[in-house]
Amino acid sequence: MKLLVVGSVAFDAIETPFGKTDKILGGAATYIGIAASILNVKSGIVSVVGGDFHQSDLDMLSGRGVNIEGIEVVKDGKTFFWSGKYHNDLNSRDTLATEVNVLENFDPKIPESMQDSEILLLGNLHPGVQLSVLEKMNKRPKLVILDTMNFWMDSAWDVLMQMIAKTDVITINDEEARQLSGEYSLVKAAKKIHTMGPEFVIIKKGEHGALLFHEGKIFAIPALPLEEVFDPTGAGDTFAGGFASYLAKKEDFSFETMKSALIVGSAMASFTVEKFGTEKLQEVTEAEMMKRIQDFKDLTTFEVEV
Amino acid sequence: MKLLVVGSVAFDAIETPFGKTDKILGGAATYIGIAASILNVKSGIVSVVGGDFHQSDLDMLSGRGVNIEGIEVVKDGKTFFWSGKYHNDLNSRDTLATEVNVLENFDPKIPESMQDSEILLLGNLHPGVQLSVLEKMNKRPKLVILDTMNFWMDSAWDVLMQMIAKTDVITINDEEARQLSGEYSLVKAAKKIHTMGPEFVIIKKGEHGALLFHEGKIFAIPALPLEEVFDPTGAGDTFAGGFASYLAKKEDFSFETMKSALIVGSAMASFTVEKFGTEKLQEVTEAEMMKRIQDFKDLTTFEVEV
Repeated sequence: MKLLVVGSVAFDAIETPFGKTDKILGGAATYIGIAASILNVKSGIVSVVGGDFHQSDLDMLSGRGVNIEGIEVVKDGKTFFWSGKYHNDLNSRDTLATEVNVLENFDPKIPESMQDSEILLLGNLHPGVQLSVLEKMNKRPKLVILDTMNFWMDSAWDVLMQMIAKTDVITINDEEARQLSGEYSLVKAAKKIHTMGPEFVIIKKGEHGALLFHEGKIFAIPALPLEEVFDPTGAGDTFAGGFASYLAKKEDFSFETMKSALIVGSAMASFTVEKFGTEKLQEVTEAEMMKRIQDFKDLTTFEVEV
Repeated sequence: MKLLVVGSVAFDAIETPFGKTDKILGGAATYIGIAASILNVKSGIVSVVGGDFHQSDLDMLSGRGVNIEGIEVVKDGKTFFWSGKYHNDLNSRDTLATEVNVLENFDPKIPESMQDSEILLLGNLHPGVQLSVLEKMNKRPKLVILDTMNFWMDSAWDVLMQMIAKTDVITINDEEARQLSGEYSLVKAAKKIHTMGPEFVIIKKGEHGALLFHEGKIFAIPALPLEEVFDPTGAGDTFAGGFASYLAKKEDFSFETMKSALIVGSAMASFTVEKFGTEKLQEVTEAEMMKRIQDFKDLTTFEVEV
């Protein structure tokens, strides 16, 4: 199956306790596209960048088999830029700068070559923009996966509700699930979010793993405990990318396949945090990927006989 | 195998968003003894209570097969009392009162009938008292499990280090692991704690589950996501009790058996939080226990084929 990704392609400047970067390649759609390429899944990105964007980064994406026809280049505009500094525990960060730039007037254009995508992954953008993508598809994709955040709950509630109503799989973090549902218990929160539309609810808990809810069933995975987290930027996007790509590869949206997809997403995200930005993800081989999935099995498999 | 438990037998007064109790039965050793009885493991408690303690609670314990010869009753003294109020999220609480009472001069006496216990579980007490128990055993138990907390790290570091050096399995929470080791990464923290003595390090993360570390291997389990947590009091003690009892039942201390023991402990703890104090745990049947373990399997089992 083909995966269509709509989301940011951006520059990030990152500071962690271990070092800092100048403007480097970032953006949700970037991480997702690279994740898809690792699984040899056909993907295409719809996004917008400025004239300051590097041709070499576009070449890297298309070299990995990512369809970049949908990445509009606004010659006299500047690329979305985010700059942040992580605290010592790497679990929290301060945003130093957010320059929305060309993303401000982002009007997604779906290239004809991606109109037949069976899976649509809508990265964290204004829900109105996300809705417009659905309207521009000649036919509704078989699976719509939505990423969103608390910012849109605060600023665009009604449009967000419309978007969520058209969503099959929503991925949000635990605090956002609580805000969206008004429920503290994540089990209750997921139940309430199901009634808003999504049949599948994924709650991301960062270093504590993730939960998948579907028709009263729950699947839980821990995050891989790492000796060193170097830079958490892009981990959530990589997770979503690995998740969606696995579904595309398996051409199946059952609960069992979604569970496996969660593992693949987490395994990929565990690579992303090992170096700055997309650096590590670009190096990952299939063998490393298989090894990391085995690590997850070792981490979680048990037998009990009472 | 026989399990010897040294720890508090106490009164608790608990307030949660769902209600409040008068003085009810509490104490780490109480939860642990009940947990052992659910698995039909022979256990004995060494503790001290006051003349105000209820004979009916002692009868309940011995009726479940728990050896209570080691529970000293100080007729003119008062039982340890703790009172606390949980916040709305149930993840934090305020201690309203701590009356140490007869526990202040606790001098553990090991009854002859428990001297041959193969497993010793030392509940959270002054590390000097914990050390004295080891000295009073005719021979060292095959496995020493230690529970401790940040309070002793702040107030009795040197004695605590002596105790930890004689420990096989330590159970602490994530913040305590960080304090004990001076490392933020839990993988690094566990490594450092291994060098202090314990071959097995269990890090409890409350609603986020637990981690087991041994010789470079890691096992992770989520907590069972619950719709409603009614009262978290005693969950950690129940976890330790279920864990130690499973090892006693299996008469094996391998990493594989420890993994299973972690599941059993977590399954038992998930019962404890469903009602106030020990109420739910006292009702649990073997069938419910098996069902809960199966819930854990369903929660965590997956297959991935890339």
